[in-house]
Amino acid sequence: MSEYILKYNGGEVSLDSSSSLRDALEKLGAPKADLVAARLNGKLFDLASPVRESGNIEAVFTTEKDGLEIIRHSAAHLMAQAIMRHYPRARLAIGPTVEDGFYYDIDFGDTPITTEDLPKIEKEMKQIVKQKLRLERREFTREEALAQWEPAGEIYKVEMIKDLPEGTIISTYTQGDFTDMCRGPHVPHTGFLGAVKLMNIAGAYWRGDEKNQMLTRIYGTAWATREELDAYLARIEEAKKRDHRKLAKQLEMFTIVDSIGKGLPLWLPNGTVIREELEKLAKEKEFQYGYKRVATPHITHQELFIQSGHLPHYKESMFPPLTLEEEGEDAEVFYLKPMNCPFHHMIYLSRPRSYKELPLRLTEYGQVYRYEKSGELAGILRVRGMCMNDGHLYCTEGQLKDEFKNVMQLHLDVYKILGIKNYSMRLSLRDPNNEKGKFINNPELWAKAERVCEEALKEMHMDYTAVTGEAAFYGPKVDVQFRNVLGREETNGTNQVDFLAAERFNLRYVGPDGELHKPVVLHRAPLGTHERFIAFVTEHFAGAFPTWLAPLQVMIIPVASEFADYAHKIQRELFGEFVRAEVDDSSDTLNKRIRNAVTNWKVPNVLIIGEKERNEQSVTLRRYGLQRQVGMPFAEFKAWLLNEIKTRALPERDEEYKI
Amino acid sequence: MSEYILKYNGGEVSLDSSSSLRDALEKLGAPKADLVAARLNGKLFDLASPVRESGNIEAVFTTEKDGLEIIRHSAAHLMAQAIMRHYPRARLAIGPTVEDGFYYDIDFGDTPITTEDLPKIEKEMKQIVKQKLRLERREFTREEALAQWEPAGEIYKVEMIKDLPEGTIISTYTQGDFTDMCRGPHVPHTGFLGAVKLMNIAGAYWRGDEKNQMLTRIYGTAWATREELDAYLARIEEAKKRDHRKLAKQLEMFTIVDSIGKGLPLWLPNGTVIREELEKLAKEKEFQYGYKRVATPHITHQELFIQSGHLPHYKESMFPPLTLEEEGEDAEVFYLKPMNCPFHHMIYLSRPRSYKELPLRLTEYGQVYRYEKSGELAGILRVRGMCMNDGHLYCTEGQLKDEFKNVMQLHLDVYKILGIKNYSMRLSLRDPNNEKGKFINNPELWAKAERVCEEALKEMHMDYTAVTGEAAFYGPKVDVQFRNVLGREETNGTNQVDFLAAERFNLRYVGPDGELHKPVVLHRAPLGTHERFIAFVTEHFAGAFPTWLAPLQVMIIPVASEFADYAHKIQRELFGEFVRAEVDDSSDTLNKRIRNAVTNWKVPNVLIIGEKERNEQSVTLRRYGLQRQVGMPFAEFKAWLLNEIKTRALPERDEEYKI
Repeated sequence: MSEYILKYNGGEVSLDSSSSLRDALEKLGAPKADLVAARLNGKLFDLASPVRESGNIEAVFTTEKDGLEIIRHSAAHLMAQAIMRHYPRARLAIGPTVEDGFYYDIDFGDTPITTEDLPKIEKEMKQIVKQKLRLERREFTREEALAQWEPAGEIYKVEMIKDLPEGTIISTYTQGDFTDMCRGPHVPHTGFLGAVKLMNIAGAYWRGDEKNQMLTRIYGTAWATREELDAYLARIEEAKKRDHRKLAKQLEMFTIVDSIGKGLPLWLPNGTVIREELEKLAKEKEFQYGYKRVATPHITHQELFIQSGHLPHYKESMFPPLTLEEEGEDAEVFYLKPMNCPFHHMIYLSRPRSYKELPLRLTEYGQVYRYEKSGELAGILRVRGMCMNDGHLYCTEGQLKDEFKNVMQLHLDVYKILGIKNYSMRLSLRDPNNEKGKFINNPELWAKAERVCEEALKEMHMDYTAVTGEAAFYGPKVDVQFRNVLGREETNGTNQVDFLAAERFNLRYVGPDGELHKPVVLHRAPLGTHERFIAFVTEHFAGAFPTWLAPLQVMIIPVASEFADYAHKIQRELFGEFVRAEVDDSSDTLNKRIRNAVTNWKVPNVLIIGEKERNEQSVTLRRYGLQRQVGMPFAEFKAWLLNEIKTRALPERDEEYKI
Repeated sequence: MSEYILKYNGGEVSLDSSSSLRDALEKLGAPKADLVAARLNGKLFDLASPVRESGNIEAVFTTEKDGLEIIRHSAAHLMAQAIMRHYPRARLAIGPTVEDGFYYDIDFGDTPITTEDLPKIEKEMKQIVKQKLRLERREFTREEALAQWEPAGEIYKVEMIKDLPEGTIISTYTQGDFTDMCRGPHVPHTGFLGAVKLMNIAGAYWRGDEKNQMLTRIYGTAWATREELDAYLARIEEAKKRDHRKLAKQLEMFTIVDSIGKGLPLWLPNGTVIREELEKLAKEKEFQYGYKRVATPHITHQELFIQSGHLPHYKESMFPPLTLEEEGEDAEVFYLKPMNCPFHHMIYLSRPRSYKELPLRLTEYGQVYRYEKSGELAGILRVRGMCMNDGHLYCTEGQLKDEFKNVMQLHLDVYKILGIKNYSMRLSLRDPNNEKGKFINNPELWAKAERVCEEALKEMHMDYTAVTGEAAFYGPKVDVQFRNVLGREETNGTNQVDFLAAERFNLRYVGPDGELHKPVVLHRAPLGTHERFIAFVTEHFAGAFPTWLAPLQVMIIPVASEFADYAHKIQRELFGEFVRAEVDDSSDTLNKRIRNAVTNWKVPNVLIIGEKERNEQSVTLRRYGLQRQVGMPFAEFKAWLLNEIKTRALPERDEEYKI
């Protein structure tokens, strides 16, 4: 038998294939606790795998990403095993891992299971975990595999095997009475799978094709330890409480009605306050950063989008056109705009430009319309009509880096005001090897633009991840990735370099040399769209907005009707300063009115008004998220409040505060 | 011969038809000066008409509206006479009066005249005026008239005569060598027509039908006196200087580009400032009046406009639909919205409403799209995309009058801030005799609503004109008629009662009795559309906007480059307070830079910065429209300026100020 040399952590050992990788790690002194798999020359293997090559070996623990991934994969097998015990006629399709867990698509025939069946399956899974069944790997040729699965009626496995090229080696994993086809690696035994929970059930077509059989997809979550599982379940609970769809309904932020259309939200008064306060913030910041605001129409002749290249390339994301026929005139074909950029370019072109005017920074809250399949629409996260905080900067090449940095700084300013810290920058670069024409072919400009972006990010000491091949076709870009309560990423802000626009739209400026030059264009949207940003901010604040952003800023509650006059006097005085203040002097009990203001409406400032307050011209202030109530003269409260609003102060919370 | 009794001013006289109406007025002691015609039993006659009936006779003078109308009508004849002398082969069509003057449509055959021919015609007219030719009336039967005009080849006269019913008496007027067919009355002689001027030439189809012959339309203006004519021509000059199309171009307010579409303005930065400042004003006022802002999409399923009744009734003013086809889904037919109201009704319907919430006042700057024929589009006065300052109030019947008054008061507040005084209220009522279903048939509600409107206007001591038959089909309304520089009326604000909406949209509220009731709806738009309102305001201020509204509020001009640093320091300090301030330290001469700021850009505040100013940390302020420059410490200027902006002060002007 051949001998193989395995190296680990400075030591080395020589073994033949009668030894397993676990043996090798043991001999090399790797810790045993949490050990779940081995990495040999960068590739993952079962611990039980025989030694078959020389090289560097590493221990993989359940505490790291790869280890957790293995646990989740094995958890899918565990669930499948439990299911097969209860539903021996079920047919397994595929069971991959996903973020936080795994799923398995299963054909239950005519009677799919429901969530009510999950506890029974979980109970069975717990039994199997207790048994600590070993997972054993076996390997077969394509033909052997077919001979094994075809007679068993495992039509999905068979279809997958048949799709594999001749000569493929197919592996299976067996644990007790259950065998599944799988590439592996897996945990050594089912005892590793104590922190698993089944979450929910959905329908899914085999291979995602609606012409195929509808399968039952069962989702589960799996973690290395019980503590991690509990923390995750707590996060889920928290996220549910913060879910913007639930909060938006409770706070009456928007509505979507059938007779107008899916994905076309109507903003109710409370949601409109938030839109307009964010818009005001953007306007102020943009003023300070030297932007000029513009306003452009929502429809345009098709010519504009032909010139921009959106037609036909972007056509599938656009609404279909409308055609205006007028006697004696050519028919006019109009599109709803999915983007504002070409309109801003037209404004750039409204007169000849000189280098003295650059950088020219145009910005607009522009409502755009994009076609999304109705099945993909979701609340205000995925809509068909969205309002973009859209700006375009036109500058010389020499100004590009500074402008790029200014844009990034504006992003940071806005996020800081909102107390958003959970974000990261993703720098998308072109793939220089992509030859399918995805990127404009001008390697020199690309290199220059990419260098400018990287230098800008570095000079600003910003952490970022560079991703090759994810750039826009017209240049590199930085996307701001927000992490939501569940830790999931979504793109909100963006800052993109564009050296194609000048070409396509014949944008020029007269330089100091009297010659015409092409400006570089930056596309930027620090707040992305109103729709997605407000969804994010709602979850970020769990609906309890800071005073400046809250739809209702002050609720005044007289403890008895005899104090209503004083309450209304206070309200009028605040209202006169443009504070959104109301009085609740309804016949509800004091407690109910306070609960309404705090729990239902999440009003940041509730004033309780009784005899003492009236006599002293004072108020008792109860702030959202703070237990302690404070009494103070009304004049003092008013000054404090106006400053709170003016400075856009972030809310304070008691340490033990729970939403 | 029969005797007729004519009464005038307390006296009476008995005459037969051998006397003229002029004789009668003379005998009755009417003044002779400016006497141009007679009114007998309310009908107008030539002074030379024989006495043929008894009744009340009145003198008509050139100083009154009817008199001026007669002068304008006669002026058309005067022009026609002069033209026939120079172009004997020309064929006359029709020559009516219009606001400020008259026109005549004339067929010049193959070679129409141009404006260069007008002086020659005017000269001829002056000759005829000097001759004081008498205008003599004759009457003919239809057949006699045809016998007279047909052989002369007067095809247009002949066509008109043939359209008249059998038995019609047709009159002609002859002055010297010229006779025209005309109903009259006319001035006694051409000497009355000394204050006439030809203005311009346009093309016009015979009877307005493009299938007919194109005629030459010559416009003229005519007045009772030379002084009135001169004043009118001065007003025209003034209006030209104030023309919003000219000013908007000079001030770079908007642009319209072919590749986007006709009637779809793109607002440039300067125009956008004005839009947003007006919007801010509207928002503040609406906040104070208890409105809640909302935001709604620009497209909707056709269902909404079918429910509202806009489809099919309003269809010809709407853009054509677009149809979205999605596999496995019903086709969705979308329309661009021409109105915001149904969207606001949907917001009303977003949850059950109680009387406690009423009045509910919703408002939005909603961009709407309406189809106008391309030939009718004009700058921003007549567009296809417009942004409406649109609000809808939902109230109980008992609240209607107060709400109606509040709306009117909000209108007045806004106009006062803008210094607009040239407006009047037009109350449009239904025509109770209209049986074609133009108005909803609910006489009781109509009577109540009309009474509320009239009472409201009266209680507010507002002058108004009531117009029968001009109401919306859903209720009475008050339109605010602005008078532009030429004295022409255009509708800007509107306030409309609607008792149909509740019916159509099933709008209800729970009353104090626990039962469902229908709210009354008010539609209101104090600032009309951005497009028309800004056109008006631009002319109103002749482009020299008050500081709060001016795109550029302060221009800082250092007299030499050594003072540029101080100029920029001042600029930064003002900019930090969100003042739109710039420095012009270009290489142009001081005078040129001042002229640029004042004449080209009409900047309300120009600061001149030299050695004295730098040393004293002061500024020299030159305000638009004021000759006197004032020196003051910069701190004082800043405080003054911020107050000027905050209070939205109207501009001051020297008495001798001319735009």
